[in-house]
Amino acid sequence: MYKKVIDYSLITLIISNCIAVIVETVDVVYNSFGEFFVIFEKTSVCIFTIEYLFRLWNCTIEERFRRPIIGRLQYMVSLRALVDLLAFLPFYLPFSTVDLRFIRILRLFRFMRIFKLGQYWNATKLISNVLKAKKEELILCIIITFALIIIASSFMYFAETQAQPDKYPSIPATMWWCVTTLTTVGYGDVFPITIIGKVLTALIAILGIGLFALPAGILASGFAEELHKGKGRVKTTCPHCGNIIQ
Amino acid sequence: MYKKVIDYSLITLIISNCIAVIVETVDVVYNSFGEFFVIFEKTSVCIFTIEYLFRLWNCTIEERFRRPIIGRLQYMVSLRALVDLLAFLPFYLPFSTVDLRFIRILRLFRFMRIFKLGQYWNATKLISNVLKAKKEELILCIIITFALIIIASSFMYFAETQAQPDKYPSIPATMWWCVTTLTTVGYGDVFPITIIGKVLTALIAILGIGLFALPAGILASGFAEELHKGKGRVKTTCPHCGNIIQ
Amino acid sequence: MYKKVIDYSLITLIISNCIAVIVETVDVVYNSFGEFFVIFEKTSVCIFTIEYLFRLWNCTIEERFRRPIIGRLQYMVSLRALVDLLAFLPFYLPFSTVDLRFIRILRLFRFMRIFKLGQYWNATKLISNVLKAKKEELILCIIITFALIIIASSFMYFAETQAQPDKYPSIPATMWWCVTTLTTVGYGDVFPITIIGKVLTALIAILGIGLFALPAGILASGFAEELHKGKGRVKTTCPHCGNIIQ
Amino acid sequence: MYKKVIDYSLITLIISNCIAVIVETVDVVYNSFGEFFVIFEKTSVCIFTIEYLFRLWNCTIEERFRRPIIGRLQYMVSLRALVDLLAFLPFYLPFSTVDLRFIRILRLFRFMRIFKLGQYWNATKLISNVLKAKKEELILCIIITFALIIIASSFMYFAETQAQPDKYPSIPATMWWCVTTLTTVGYGDVFPITIIGKVLTALIAILGIGLFALPAGILASGFAEELHKGKGRVKTTCPHCGNIIQ
Repeated sequence: MYKKVIDYSLITLIISNCIAVIVETVDVVYNSFGEFFVIFEKTSVCIFTIEYLFRLWNCTIEERFRRPIIGRLQYMVSLRALVDLLAFLPFYLPFSTVDLRFIRILRLFRFMRIFKLGQYWNATKLISNVLKAKKEELILCIIITFALIIIASSFMYFAETQAQPDKYPSIPATMWWCVTTLTTVGYGDVFPITIIGKVLTALIAILGIGLFALPAGILASGFAEELHKGKGRVKTTCPHCGNIIQ
Repeated sequence: MYKKVIDYSLITLIISNCIAVIVETVDVVYNSFGEFFVIFEKTSVCIFTIEYLFRLWNCTIEERFRRPIIGRLQYMVSLRALVDLLAFLPFYLPFSTVDLRFIRILRLFRFMRIFKLGQYWNATKLISNVLKAKKEELILCIIITFALIIIASSFMYFAETQAQPDKYPSIPATMWWCVTTLTTVGYGDVFPITIIGKVLTALIAILGIGLFALPAGILASGFAEELHKGKGRVKTTCPHCGNIIQ
Repeated sequence: MYKKVIDYSLITLIISNCIAVIVETVDVVYNSFGEFFVIFEKTSVCIFTIEYLFRLWNCTIEERFRRPIIGRLQYMVSLRALVDLLAFLPFYLPFSTVDLRFIRILRLFRFMRIFKLGQYWNATKLISNVLKAKKEELILCIIITFALIIIASSFMYFAETQAQPDKYPSIPATMWWCVTTLTTVGYGDVFPITIIGKVLTALIAILGIGLFALPAGILASGFAEELHKGKGRVKTTCPHCGNIIQ
Repeated sequence: MYKKVIDYSLITLIISNCIAVIVETVDVVYNSFGEFFVIFEKTSVCIFTIEYLFRLWNCTIEERFRRPIIGRLQYMVSLRALVDLLAFLPFYLPFSTVDLRFIRILRLFRFMRIFKLGQYWNATKLISNVLKAKKEELILCIIITFALIIIASSFMYFAETQAQPDKYPSIPATMWWCVTTLTTVGYGDVFPITIIGKVLTALIAILGIGLFALPAGILASGFAEELHKGKGRVKTTCPHCGNIIQ
């Protein structure tokens, strides 16, 4: 109970921090409440530092970090401890120009167990199960996408580079165009003007439709399977004779 | 029968009102038929006021509003009565600058029971059942989308703000770009020009494909399930005793 | 056999006509081969006129047009005869400015029975069966889309008209923007600049994803159902005892 | 074992070649490391030539090329040998202006058997099986798309050519616009400005959603079927005799 209050306070503080980082970038807000952001930042770093030291001290209650010194060092190099450390360390370094405050959002994962009992837990589990079950097919889709981007960019480069040397200066630069076309984003900053370039683009854009259809189909069968599996395990009994079916 | 005629007349009036609100905004139309719109508006408001008072007077025939005074007050604060009120009230307020006439379209929901017997009722029911059954998964998709937008915007802001301070002035402003990219709208008013920004955009756009595939897969399994459920109720027999189940 | 040769010749002529109509619009081609197009047009019209008169004369062999005069008049007002007529009639009218030659592509439907035995016939039948079975759900999707466009355009008009009176001059004009956003085309000729307009756009664009997911889900379950149905009808027999299963 | 080392070395060399072709097009890189690229190219061509001659000499160990002279000639005109040849031949031709080096990426297919045991093999097989099983439906989708593009472009041309003669100069040119709209890419280089053009575009864009939904639905049912088939092979028993079928 006592633990839960601390957990929720820390979650609130982390979320406030993330909102502060986002809102701070708006000039109007920063000019009006700049002072406040500095104080809030200092307070947050203090609390995060204390929390980090406290967790480091108490990590020995866990079985795998139970040895006084080596255990604490092992804890220090664990992923969650490093994330915790990076969330406040840059503040103490005088000449750090990198803004790592955004890493604080990653700290929210630590508190995910609290949400375990919420109503979205089943949905989260279902989606993550489907993504896990279809991991290989989805990764293959991404590999196909990358292969398509490389091949299409190479063809497109040779088709357009002479007509628009500033927009298609090299194959890596053409890849940018290829991604925006295959994903149907189509900003319009780069587009072909030669006939062969336009025909190629038409083919790429139509292939792009397949790129949407493939993962949609994979996930659809994944969800169907997962739900079917779930039903099979819940033993259906016949209300007439009481025997278990399927 | 008599009731149905009034219902249909009111539906026609509401739809005419909505069309009037839409068409009125076209300057050419307003300059030519301005007078007509004013008269039509006055007539409509009169009819809506009479209808409102009539409904308020007769609401006591419903069980839950049966007490003469308290019942009518309870009716007045009910959602449908408030929508009815807001549909004409602003007309009577002399200095109301807000155009609430569009709220009249919401009044159509009141008459939806008429369509209950139409041929699209089954389809409406099927789609709404699927959306209800998959509500949590779909809300989770929206949550994931928002989380993605926040994280992607933060990274993108740090990548692009120095190269294009006018287009990526702050993280909230970058979110606008992020939405148009993730949903593959891609207006082209804002697009990255740095290499790191382009690589990030490529990743975001490819993730955007997943954003389309996930709800498509969820809904596909939802429809399959719903249809299966409907069929299952008629036919399944227990292999042990031969009785029909469900 | 003799009939088949004529059918194929006419198909070739119609397709050549369609290609001619398309290619003729290219200035370079027209300036070089203008003479040829005129001759080709005249020849085609002659053949189409003869074919039309021949079909009109012989229509009495069909049961429903078997009466000599009334039957031929009934044939003349049938859809296919009207399409045939419109395919060449404008040529004979001296002052016709409307280019109806493109209607000739519709004549291809008449010859579709030839393709009935081709390898794509099963696929065509499957897709058309699914579209028929899911007609109501799909029409409902289109109705929802139109409702969304009307509501979203109205809100957007009030949000943006003061900031960009030239781009959002009226609700019907805003609908154009709304269609390009909901379908994620995003030309970039019109886009919001106010904060409230951008927030609304974000919501509309995310709803647009659902607009893609809904028909995809409906069609996915439609195809699954159709294939399942097809299998049920093909009587599976057990290879061990020869009995029909399911 | 010895064979595997050579295979992997050749794969590494081919991938390096492809990367070199891509990176070489970047001016900055070419100016700095131009010399290196020339040497790398020469070395690669040498190795590819030796490999080609070696493979040509040893092709007789395969059953179908076992005859000393005719077998080797048959091997030379086989697809994989031609690809191998084209990968280095242009280097030896003094005045070849065509850059065929990119064909080298196709050589990777030859080594695909190595990946056969990898973890992605099942996923590759599943996806290719589904694409094969649904080949006809997918090709039909592409045919429908092309028909739609031709019809929509013709209508659009007549609607917009007078208002924007530079953007919609001919039907083939309008097809470019039509592809970018139907696939929802929407670069924004060409867009309608007349009312009839905008209404047509709205219809085309909404049809474009169906274009995404159709293959997604087809593939979804394809994946479901394929997975079902795989499961069905192990378990189905005939209710009449109790034997396992398939």
